[in-house]
Parts: sequence; C-alpha cells; structure tokens
Amino acid sequence: MSRDPDRERPLDGGAAQQETGPSRKGAVLVNGVILNGPTTDVKAGEKFVEEAWRLIMEEVVLKATDVSEKVCEWRPPEQLRQLLDLELRDSGEPHGRLLALCRDVIRYSVKTNHPRFFNQLYAGLDYYSLVARFMTEALNPSVYTYEVSPVFLLVEEAVLKKMIEFIGWKEGDGIFNPGGSVSNMYAMNLARYKFCPDIKEKGLSGLPRLILFTSAECHYSMKKAASFLGIGTENVCFVETDERGKMIPEELEKQVCQAKKEGTAPFLVCATAGTTVLGAFDPLNEIADVCERHGLWLHVDASWGGSALVSRKHRNLLHGIHRADSVAWNPHKMLMAGIQCCAFLVKDKSDLLKKCYSAKASYLFQQDKFYDVSYDTGDKSIQCSRRPDAFKFWMTWKALGTLGLEERVNRALALSRYLVEEIKKREGFKLLMEPEYANICFWYIPPSLRETEEGPEFWAKLHLVAPAIKERMMKKGSLMLSYQPHRGKVNFFRQVVISPQVSREDMDFLLDEIDLLGRDM
Amino acid sequence: MSRDPDRERPLDGGAAQQETGPSRKGAVLVNGVILNGPTTDVKAGEKFVEEAWRLIMEEVVLKATDVSEKVCEWRPPEQLRQLLDLELRDSGEPHGRLLALCRDVIRYSVKTNHPRFFNQLYAGLDYYSLVARFMTEALNPSVYTYEVSPVFLLVEEAVLKKMIEFIGWKEGDGIFNPGGSVSNMYAMNLARYKFCPDIKEKGLSGLPRLILFTSAECHYSMKKAASFLGIGTENVCFVETDERGKMIPEELEKQVCQAKKEGTAPFLVCATAGTTVLGAFDPLNEIADVCERHGLWLHVDASWGGSALVSRKHRNLLHGIHRADSVAWNPHKMLMAGIQCCAFLVKDKSDLLKKCYSAKASYLFQQDKFYDVSYDTGDKSIQCSRRPDAFKFWMTWKALGTLGLEERVNRALALSRYLVEEIKKREGFKLLMEPEYANICFWYIPPSLRETEEGPEFWAKLHLVAPAIKERMMKKGSLMLSYQPHRGKVNFFRQVVISPQVSREDMDFLLDEIDLLGRDM
Repeated sequence: MSRDPDRERPLDGGAAQQETGPSRKGAVLVNGVILNGPTTDVKAGEKFVEEAWRLIMEEVVLKATDVSEKVCEWRPPEQLRQLLDLELRDSGEPHGRLLALCRDVIRYSVKTNHPRFFNQLYAGLDYYSLVARFMTEALNPSVYTYEVSPVFLLVEEAVLKKMIEFIGWKEGDGIFNPGGSVSNMYAMNLARYKFCPDIKEKGLSGLPRLILFTSAECHYSMKKAASFLGIGTENVCFVETDERGKMIPEELEKQVCQAKKEGTAPFLVCATAGTTVLGAFDPLNEIADVCERHGLWLHVDASWGGSALVSRKHRNLLHGIHRADSVAWNPHKMLMAGIQCCAFLVKDKSDLLKKCYSAKASYLFQQDKFYDVSYDTGDKSIQCSRRPDAFKFWMTWKALGTLGLEERVNRALALSRYLVEEIKKREGFKLLMEPEYANICFWYIPPSLRETEEGPEFWAKLHLVAPAIKERMMKKGSLMLSYQPHRGKVNFFRQVVISPQVSREDMDFLLDEIDLLGRDM
Repeated sequence: MSRDPDRERPLDGGAAQQETGPSRKGAVLVNGVILNGPTTDVKAGEKFVEEAWRLIMEEVVLKATDVSEKVCEWRPPEQLRQLLDLELRDSGEPHGRLLALCRDVIRYSVKTNHPRFFNQLYAGLDYYSLVARFMTEALNPSVYTYEVSPVFLLVEEAVLKKMIEFIGWKEGDGIFNPGGSVSNMYAMNLARYKFCPDIKEKGLSGLPRLILFTSAECHYSMKKAASFLGIGTENVCFVETDERGKMIPEELEKQVCQAKKEGTAPFLVCATAGTTVLGAFDPLNEIADVCERHGLWLHVDASWGGSALVSRKHRNLLHGIHRADSVAWNPHKMLMAGIQCCAFLVKDKSDLLKKCYSAKASYLFQQDKFYDVSYDTGDKSIQCSRRPDAFKFWMTWKALGTLGLEERVNRALALSRYLVEEIKKREGFKLLMEPEYANICFWYIPPSLRETEEGPEFWAKLHLVAPAIKERMMKKGSLMLSYQPHRGKVNFFRQVVISPQVSREDMDFLLDEIDLLGRDM
C-alpha cells in the first residue's frame, strides 16, 4: 500500500486529537483557510481507532459471555449525568480522555449481549453479524443505487429471495427498513395503494373511512401506523382473541361485515405471528379465508415469530403464511442479526412496491446510466439514505447455514420448554399460560402471599411484586427481564429466550435469583 | 475477568464455524436438544472477530486516505453476482472462506471514505464517529427506555440540547431517526397534528384537503411524505424559485392565498436550507413572515445545510432559522457522523411531539417503574427499536469541539470556493451558477463542442457528455462524482466537498481527470 507522504505527516503537530494544519509548501489560501494537503492527522486517528478497538474487544466482546459480569451497572439518571461528562464544548478532548469516556459509556450501558439479559426480544452476541456490522460502519455505504452500493444491493436481493422462499411464495419483492413498526407502515400504505391507487396523488380527503383489522394483542405500531398514515387510530378495529392470545377468525369476519354495513371501507387485515407479550400466533389459514372472502389484503406481522420459519420443527406455528400478501420479519430478534435488521416482504411481483413508493428523483435515479438501472432499488423505500441491513443477516446465514439457524431456533424453544417445566415444579411460581414460542409469562408469588386466596386483594398485592423485584434486580445487576400488566392480568414477568450463549443453567439461575430477590416480600 | 470454564471449552470440537455441542455432563434433553452449557464456540468466534477486524483495519481504515487506491472496482451486476458467492445454503462456511468473502465484499464496494469520492452528500472517514459506531454495534442497544439504554438516552438529550442552541431556540425537543426523509415526515405529521389534533384518532377522511407548500427545488422526500401520510402528492404546492434555486416568498404568499380561496386547508410550509442539487438556501426570514401572517407551521429541511450553523462565518446562510417550528438536520452529511445520523428538532416544549406520537404500550413504557419514566423517550418515535445515532455525533463533537466542527465546515466551503475559481479559469469548464454552499455544479464541454453555438444541438450533445464521462470514471475507478439533469438544464456534474481528508490537490485532480476522460469526446 503506498501513501502520499504529505497525508501521513502533517507538519503542524498539535494535540493528537486536533485536525492538524496542512503543508504550507506552495500554500493556497482561501477565506483564511490553507487548502494544501488534508488536515486530518491520519496516524493519530488510526491509532485512536486501534486503541478504542482493543477496549471494545476487551470490555464488550470478550466479556459478553461471562456470567460473572454484571448485566447492568445501574445509576439513576441524575447520578449518571454527573458520572458522565456529557457536555459538548468549544474545544475538543485529547485521545486519552476520549478513551476514558468510551470506557464509561461501556461501563454504564446495559450489556444486551450478556447471557442473562432477557429483557427484550433481542439478546446475545452473534460474531458473524458483528463482523458484518463493523464492515459496513467502516465502509459507510448507503443502499439506493447500484453505482454506490453494488455489493450490498446484490446481497439484499439474495437475502430477500431466500426469505421469500421460506415464506413459501414462488416469487416476491421486498425491502429492508428500520424496524418492524416501519414494516407495518409499509404494509398499510401498500394495501391502501392496492385498494385505491389514486390515494398516492389525491390523499384520503373526501374518501370514505378506510378500516383495518388486527388482533387485540397486536403490536402497538399498528396504532402508530394508522395515525401516521392519516387513517386514524379509531379506524383500527381490534379483533378479540382467545384465551391464548390468538385472533378469533369468526370475530374478524363479524367485524368486517359490520364495517361494510356501516358504509366504511375495509382494506386490510394484520395478523400477528408471535405477539410481543404472549408470543401468540394468529391462525393464519383461517384468517386468510376471511380475507379471501372479503377481498382484503392480508399482512402478517411476523417481526418476532417469523424466524420460526427456518425450523422444520416449529414452522407450523405460521401455517398458512404463504397466503399472506405481505410479511414483516425481523432477523434482528430471534436470529440475532443486530439492531436493526427488518425485512418487509411482498408477494406481488408486478412492481406494486415500486409503483406505490417511487418519486423518481432525477438527481439520484438517472435513467441514462450505463448499467441496468433496475438494480437501483432505492426508490422503493420511504428513506433516501438507507443502511445495508441485509448484509449482517447474510453473513450469519453464510456462517451457520440454514441448518445452523434452525438449530438456534430449536434450542431457544427447547430451553423455553425446560423453563416452563421448572416453573411448574417450583413453589411460588405460577405460569400465566403454556407458551407457544419463546415468551414465558409467569408470576412470582412471594411467601407472604402464598396462603392468600386469589381474590382482589391477592391480585392487588401481586401487582406490586414484579416491579419491586425488577428494581432489586437492576440495582444488583444480576439479571434483566421484563414485566408488564396485560389485558386485565396484573404485573407478571415475561422471560424471552434467544441466544445460543444461554443454557439450562441460566434458566435455573433466573428462577433462583427471582426467588432470592423476592423471598422477603 | 473470570469465565465459566464450561463456556470456553465446549467439549464437542467440531468445525470452527459451527456452534458446538454443549457439555454432556448432567445433560438435560428437551425435544432432542441438549440444554447444558452454551453452544457457541466462544474462542473461535472471538478469533474470527479479531481476524476480520485486522482485515477491516487494513483494507478499509488504513486505505481510506490513500489516493493511489481506486474509489471503486467496477463490475456490472451480472459479473459481480458471479464473482461473489451470494447464495445462502443449508450448511455454513468455514472461517477462512468467510474471511475471503469479507475481502471480496470490501474489494467490490465503493470506497465512500476515499478522498476522491464526491458522489453523494456524505464522504470521508471520521475516526471518532467510527469508534462510536463500533461501540454501539458491539453493545447492540435499542434506545427507547432508560432502563435498557441509560447512557445513550442521556447522550441524545445532550446532543439535541446543543443542536437546539445552534438553531437559536431557547428550548425545544427532538428525536434522532433514520433519515432526513423520515424527519420531513415527522414534521408533516406534527404540523398536521397541531393544525387538527383529531386527525390522530379520526384520520383524514371527510376533512377538507390539507395543503402544504415547498420549493420547486425541495428534496423528493416531500412527495414521498405527502403520499405516505395520506395527504397526497397533488396537495404539495411547489413554489417557484429564483434563478439561484431559492424559494420566492412572494410566490409562496400568492399560492397560500389562492389555496385558501379554493377552500383547501393550508397547514405547513417546508423551506429548504441547502437544496440537494444546487445547494440553495431559501430565505427563511421572509418565509417565516409569510407563515406568521397565515398561521402556518414552518419546517426547515436543513438536512444538508444545517451544519453551516456551527460556522460563525457561514451560519448566516440560515438567517431566520430560529423562527422555524421544526428543523431536520443530518450530521451524517457535512459533519461526517456516519450513515445515518439525523435529528428532527421541534421548537415546542409543551410535549407536542409526545402527544402526537405516543401509543403508550404498557409492556414497554410501564408507569410503575422505580425511576423517573420521563426518561423513557421512545414513545415519541414512530419506531419501536431505535439505534443510538446521536452517540456517534456526540463522540466527534467531544473530540473536535465546536471549533473543530466549525473548521471542517469552513475548510469544505473554502475548498469549494477554490474549485469554483479554477473552473472559471479552465477552458472547457462552465459553471452552472455561483455556489452558496458545497455543491459546485458545472458542465464539461469537450473540445468537439467548444466552437458550437449554444443552441438546441449544443445542449442535446452536451447532455450526453456527463453520463459518458461518468461511465469512464467508474470503470477506471479514479473518482466518483454525480451528474444529473435539472429543471430544464441538461446533464451537468455536481461536485460536493465535505471531508477534511480532501485537499486542493484533489480539486485540481478532479478537473484534470474529467478533462482527461472527456478530451476525445
């Protein structure tokens, strides 16, 4: 590798962190700025990257699998603000000070890679996706045109093709985007466009009320999407679920008929495959029947549950998904691709996605380029700049193969099953319901409540237990899992199993630790 | 650092890339899966990360400042597909093969860090932001609740506060989001909510036509946003600009009055500070007057031009921005924070943003937490998972200080000025117009056209020149800059200057190289 020596040795010296002055030799001065040579102290910059990398490797990557480390080093906001030097000033800081800041940032951040982080629908460390992410951060691409992102556009195409195969469509289209919530918005807008293409130009003003249907257990992004897209949250009909949290198809059909009778315009059903709290899977086949009978677009929010498709053992949870018109599926959850990695997939191959979303910017999507501009897929997006999120999933898939992905899903669900059986065996633990997936919902009943009858007083007291244990757990830093009240049920814990770095021993620890933290309550 | 020895030495051996089997000692078997110990071969994974890191450092970071390297190694899609092994298979690949793949991905990717990459509104390598990005990829946080992202929420707050200060507001609110296009959507929806809060629940059906105004030179995301939000692209009024590309305030006022006369509902004006092609700044103060007179929300899309605010010399370009109700500003462009780093900023402090966007998910934004839940700011977002994009900008700001950021902007604009003067001096180069910012738009007129009169034939022929030179440039890999036709003007080059790694010599090279590539045309 050869370098322009002027670029390596700026003559100015100066503090390492400052951008140093360029060479004065044959200097050109414009508006008081000397323009010869670059001003970055490349050597110092590279050294900083090396040093910080070492820190990241030691403090994050190597510690990620160490259960003796804390999951979090809890500090309340006011105190953390004092511990960290957050303020941005006129002058910069030297490299040594920046490295100390990096160390503090890591120290006080939650270790979502920790084997005992069970708080969200993502967890663990995937080495392959991590490498892919380091690469894309260093390359800093934006995925809109082939000209500027040739590799990442082809990778996205390859990943989408494979995901479409797993859904069971013969062909399809899709786009990676920043979140399942955004995928659901894509679906809502696309279904609306299919229903009435004029809306793109004319908008909703003067049209009858567009109505969509989703389960009462759906993700909250449905309401956000309806509001953002100008449909209105009141036009989201929440369909009742059975006791397991699954949408009842007969209820759906009743509501659709009722909406039609009222003169509104039903256009979309959003089923959920893997609900956020209970991990429930709507009966897709029966819902697809209703959609077919009424000519409604079927979108499946499989952001969480979609990854079961790679497991021959568990893909039946999504039986009927091939009948969907569109699917949201986030490999950053169960398949650990790193936040964010979210595919919005569409069965249509008549370019509906492009027709719906394109704005044909002539400065970016020039039609007189020298290559096949059908590869410039950025105009299908609501974004302009877009990150190459497919690449990190591609790398993991390459590394593990489909069989390796399948093994991860199977193991996570086997661990979930183990935990369920342990909960059933243990005194003071009470399962909310049998899980279908990796969400295990349960109450911890402290000794003082174990003799109390399950009446209003019992539930009122139990409601306070999970938040109190969560507080102790956070302050101790031994474990993180989530709790919530849910549709009339008082606060309960939701344990989520994902990472292959997690073992039976961690499940045992989880129950022991909750018992330890709540025993005196 | 202590480790559970079982986690380090899985008993199974196996190919390095495969997740190895857990310990059989006291094995628990569920559904055919052994659940003891983690299945990841941690040592092999860590080694892979180390090796890949070395590759990234050598092939991307260290080469980023080397002008003797190619900007791109062009391959047409069909050929690139054959060169890369894109297919995802049942079995995984060994680490050696994965590293070779990584090398290929880097090789065929465009080097957006290269000092001669001038193709988009981002470029160059910022060592500090890069380190921050490596950190967040390793930590893999999602920014919605303080509980799970304490540091990154406080950092976002600190950065927003400082950006608000630079806009000139006494106080304000804001959120980082995935792109200027999305920021513009946030603005459109928020202005609409302010105009008529009922829309959140009831939607647009049955309402009069909502109308918004923006410059004819605005970013294409305005149309995307109007379509996505159900407003409709026909309800975007494009206001005529002067010859410099600036919105004409008198024309704006005429159109607003006309819209009111027609019984529609004007609610929003989007001004642009730094247009995408010409780098024009709308006259914000005069536009604010119009907005005030008619009670319209003023949003300023300063995605590109906002960074001039950190320069005392150039901030006058945005004179009047403190009168805006909301601003989009992307530090990932001129301030090199890495894609994506985009702030949407709002003057309102009455919690309008939260009221407009919240959905109050009880599983995530529990109100009975043990800390001050006003720090759980995720409900202001249209996303659920969200990346900590503020952090990378914070790191650069910490490292350089405001003065360092200012110096970057001043230098980029001084270099632009230098290039303009060179273009004026050189035969065969013709400036489209004097730049206001870092976009320098010009034609290259090849020798064969230099004697032709500037009539229809001249322009028709000139239209073909930039695409032809671009093709040669891409195939040679020496340089990348953009071209486009624009509002009646035939294809011209748009040069964008950003990175402090760029020097006067690169400007000279740019002109020499275009001349070299086009001399025979």
